[in-house]
Amino acid sequence: MSIYFDNAATTSLSKEVLESMMPFLTEQYGNASSTHSFGRSSKAAIEQSRKIIANQLGCKPGELFFTSCGTEANNMAIKCAVRDLGINYIISSTIEHHCVLHTVEEMNKLEHIHVEYVKVLPNGSFDLEHLASLLEKANDKTLVSLMHANNETGNLNDIQKIGELCAKVGAFFHSDTVQTIAHLTFNLKDSKVNFVSGSAHKFHGPKGVGFLYIKHLTKIASYIHGGSQERNLRAGTENVAGIVGMAKALELAYANLTEERERIDNLKTYFHNQLINEIQDVKFNTNMENSIFTVLNISLPPTFSNEMTLFNLDLKGIACSGGSACSSGSNLGSHVMQAMNHPSNRKAVRFSFSKFNTKEEVDTAIEKIKELALISA
Amino acid sequence: MSIYFDNAATTSLSKEVLESMMPFLTEQYGNASSTHSFGRSSKAAIEQSRKIIANQLGCKPGELFFTSCGTEANNMAIKCAVRDLGINYIISSTIEHHCVLHTVEEMNKLEHIHVEYVKVLPNGSFDLEHLASLLEKANDKTLVSLMHANNETGNLNDIQKIGELCAKVGAFFHSDTVQTIAHLTFNLKDSKVNFVSGSAHKFHGPKGVGFLYIKHLTKIASYIHGGSQERNLRAGTENVAGIVGMAKALELAYANLTEERERIDNLKTYFHNQLINEIQDVKFNTNMENSIFTVLNISLPPTFSNEMTLFNLDLKGIACSGGSACSSGSNLGSHVMQAMNHPSNRKAVRFSFSKFNTKEEVDTAIEKIKELALISA
Repeated sequence: MSIYFDNAATTSLSKEVLESMMPFLTEQYGNASSTHSFGRSSKAAIEQSRKIIANQLGCKPGELFFTSCGTEANNMAIKCAVRDLGINYIISSTIEHHCVLHTVEEMNKLEHIHVEYVKVLPNGSFDLEHLASLLEKANDKTLVSLMHANNETGNLNDIQKIGELCAKVGAFFHSDTVQTIAHLTFNLKDSKVNFVSGSAHKFHGPKGVGFLYIKHLTKIASYIHGGSQERNLRAGTENVAGIVGMAKALELAYANLTEERERIDNLKTYFHNQLINEIQDVKFNTNMENSIFTVLNISLPPTFSNEMTLFNLDLKGIACSGGSACSSGSNLGSHVMQAMNHPSNRKAVRFSFSKFNTKEEVDTAIEKIKELALISA
Repeated sequence: MSIYFDNAATTSLSKEVLESMMPFLTEQYGNASSTHSFGRSSKAAIEQSRKIIANQLGCKPGELFFTSCGTEANNMAIKCAVRDLGINYIISSTIEHHCVLHTVEEMNKLEHIHVEYVKVLPNGSFDLEHLASLLEKANDKTLVSLMHANNETGNLNDIQKIGELCAKVGAFFHSDTVQTIAHLTFNLKDSKVNFVSGSAHKFHGPKGVGFLYIKHLTKIASYIHGGSQERNLRAGTENVAGIVGMAKALELAYANLTEERERIDNLKTYFHNQLINEIQDVKFNTNMENSIFTVLNISLPPTFSNEMTLFNLDLKGIACSGGSACSSGSNLGSHVMQAMNHPSNRKAVRFSFSKFNTKEEVDTAIEKIKELALISA
């Protein structure tokens, strides 16, 4: 039986969430756009889900738009902002998830778009002084896209502060919050962020559903054109079961957040301390003082066989990751580690936790890493 | 208990399909992009699904790209063709589904794009002579987007013939086949179509998943940018359960197609004949000689209360539709009926069938329509 330490890539669907979805995978199959009873029942479930999520995130239901995933939500925010808000200047970073990084690169191909990247501090957070200087040239035709928690390191950025810097000059602010929704509390009403994104499968919801929050009065039109679903902002027959499951998963996450955060944070600290005790020359890409409680990115010394580390851990029944899952298909190495000047002769490994992980699993993982050290030595 | 005659809007998820999805909604939750065992198991399921679908449609697995729905697939085909194939001339029609119609309108905003619309014959099919004349100005910078079966009337177009006309001048051909995939047989290998789209929930699969077929050597890049999923053509964590369910649904549909088609076609003919017998001045927007077996669009005489017909049918437990579900949110009336010169004092009602409908349900529907005639008279 393998131990799953890759919850930043995806989480298991919780039983309660699946139960909430089952009516919509069986008898309640109406198309939410249909006006008859079957359709209205689906529509009601979707609007109820929207209310639940809005309530948890401190925004209005009318500010939430369901998408097929976090990637689509981030694409939509950036591309539609550029198309509809007259954006000509984008400030982003080189440690964004590929769905932001590549979308910004795509926008950079447009002649009228100028892109700047905020410096990353050695601790993995954004250099806010540099951001402030980049914002000197900014105005209401500027889009800032900076992530909340980095998906590889878990390092956090102060989106409240970034939002305030943006607001001063009237710049629009998008934050990829896929790793933090349902993990940290939000009060979007009082925030200065125009767009945030969420993905259900990161918090024990189903794959194939996400959302984009668009702050009231931020006027963008649809990215995927067609029917009038999602108040004309996202065409396509709604994934009713997925949406219902996402709302349930979010609700459960926030209902149990305090105790789960404490438990998982303790687990992460224990893992961190045991690594220091047991693995010579281990280092950390995660800033223990300022990171999301679910992620611990470690840096193994050159004595480990770089190429084979993940493969060997998998063989030993430990599922973890070298970077984001979305980029594991490519062999280019992590752009985040490059930006953080992580030495190429060391191996970055991300362990990410959920409420289902235990201290015993951490102990096992430590043992397996020690065994790898012996092989490599 | 309501009778469901709106299978062109969406179908119920079949039990076998849900069963095939369950492992991926429970223990097999890996992110298909992860390289560890959890991820590889999801990846294998996706690739197996791709093979199943390719096998059924007569194409290569490498020509299939999973999307979140048919709408996304159609958006992707048209927008990426325009962006990546140097398209400057689009030929489409005014009776396309909104996801094609509005996407073409969006493309028409681009300065270099010229759009022409093929005439629709009184029988609801495209005027192929007009198409041929429009194609006189066409070349390899032309995209033709014409649907296979109209979603409101079920009327069929000969995509083999359209494809041949396109191929003569080197034009690219996209067909919205959302209503025909799993209903008609395809041999994409021998077809002249560059893009076709499918949506699982139209054939007893789950909502929230679809696909785009892109013929080998038709070189477009991604619409949604990010990770390297779907060989870099569609970023975002894959909806594994949805993809597995879609493949299962397609496989089941084709395994039972001959007998189901005969049974449903008989049901449709029976409905048609009973309407003629029982409802004075009923007419048909569906061409009984050349339409998909699942759809019957009827035209009720002015004696029926136009505005209230669907509402009253719903009250009487008959779920059917005034047009496509995707446009029921708007009150503009059907663009398809307008294009077919359907008199505005008559009411078009779409009944659409599945393998779960029975002759008894048709009899009940006829009775309820007769009751409405009495109310209205």
